[in-house]
Amino acid sequence: MTQTALSDKKEGIPLLQVALDYISLPSAIAMAVRVAPFVDIVEVGTPLCKAAGVEAVRAIREVCPDKLVLADFKTPDVGGLEAQLAFGNGADMMSVIGGAPLATVRAAFEVAQQENKEILMELTGVRDILARAEEWREIGVQRMVYHRGWDEEAADRAWSDDDRSVIGRLIEMGFKVTVTGGITVESLPLFQDLPVSVIIAGRAIHRADDPPAAAQRLRSEIHRLWGQQ
Amino acid sequence: MTQTALSDKKEGIPLLQVALDYISLPSAIAMAVRVAPFVDIVEVGTPLCKAAGVEAVRAIREVCPDKLVLADFKTPDVGGLEAQLAFGNGADMMSVIGGAPLATVRAAFEVAQQENKEILMELTGVRDILARAEEWREIGVQRMVYHRGWDEEAADRAWSDDDRSVIGRLIEMGFKVTVTGGITVESLPLFQDLPVSVIIAGRAIHRADDPPAAAQRLRSEIHRLWGQQ
Repeated sequence: MTQTALSDKKEGIPLLQVALDYISLPSAIAMAVRVAPFVDIVEVGTPLCKAAGVEAVRAIREVCPDKLVLADFKTPDVGGLEAQLAFGNGADMMSVIGGAPLATVRAAFEVAQQENKEILMELTGVRDILARAEEWREIGVQRMVYHRGWDEEAADRAWSDDDRSVIGRLIEMGFKVTVTGGITVESLPLFQDLPVSVIIAGRAIHRADDPPAAAQRLRSEIHRLWGQQ
Repeated sequence: MTQTALSDKKEGIPLLQVALDYISLPSAIAMAVRVAPFVDIVEVGTPLCKAAGVEAVRAIREVCPDKLVLADFKTPDVGGLEAQLAFGNGADMMSVIGGAPLATVRAAFEVAQQENKEILMELTGVRDILARAEEWREIGVQRMVYHRGWDEEAADRAWSDDDRSVIGRLIEMGFKVTVTGGITVESLPLFQDLPVSVIIAGRAIHRADDPPAAAQRLRSEIHRLWGQQ
């Protein structure tokens, strides 16, 4: 994979990423195979990485050879080693948790640069996002994941105007922003006026009655909403 | 395991924990078997969890049946599920990253309570430790890991009086504190006047010429230093 492969395919249209929120690798593989034709990026979710290890990254790389694969490691420390683990097993991208020490971000970033891959900063739990973003930009990081966390969502934290305003600010700072957290076809218009780079859907795809159709519908809604602009 | 098993064996003497800093499970198992007789807690390190998945936790539980096993998940989100993964595969303790949303800490804590196990908050990368500690205490968390991170250490961040002062403050707040980060027999006296609960050694044990002897020497130094008090 080259950096070019990661740049958005069609200017201004966000890519669609499916999150494989599983702890069973066979189930994750089965879902990946069904929905991959309709998405751009396949994400090996954090709990799946913990459950199955890098075998999960290798497996998804193997069954989705023409897709971008993201290892959602949310690396907290030992950034260089975890980056090698991710990229060495076929990931095109890996995430580093926003709360990680800057030395960890730098270590992961350096390995990504050597391998011509990318890291994303994961904003789950980060309270001082804009201040941290300045620090990450100095290191050279270009992508981040704006995340309404799973547990926060369960605790009824809804998407708000504050979220949209921070996302807009990050994009103005030059970051390519991925958004995620319970996004559905119905909630896509919330982000429509923001030039986000990637939209992640998990349950909206894999818990749908017909997951490939759900992925296809999300993709066509994304094209309809962002394509108008 | 019961909560009692986790309480310090001898009042005032810190427990010794070996960190299995490997990404190869066979190497980690081999080292665990050699040094387990001389330590109280065996830690399945974060990169090992990413490399080998929960198979690593199961394996260490199997070969160290009479030791406490800590899954160093540094969970960033989906706290309930990751806690089930850790405890369901034999861990007595698991870590949650300090930067995780409070909803995640709460979710992991609730599973730990149900299972009569414990979570530890991992302070790697946390900048406002004392303020966060107040929030975690309200949830009911009792343990934390004060960590000079691997990447920070590589970037020459030495243990300082500030570290010692924060550790002391956390203990005064009622937390049981684990300390970790390049600790050796030579650096143990740094912590001698602090009633820490657990001391982690990684490389000081597994990179020693004679790892069992190194573990034994660390343990006897801990007993000598803290036993005098």
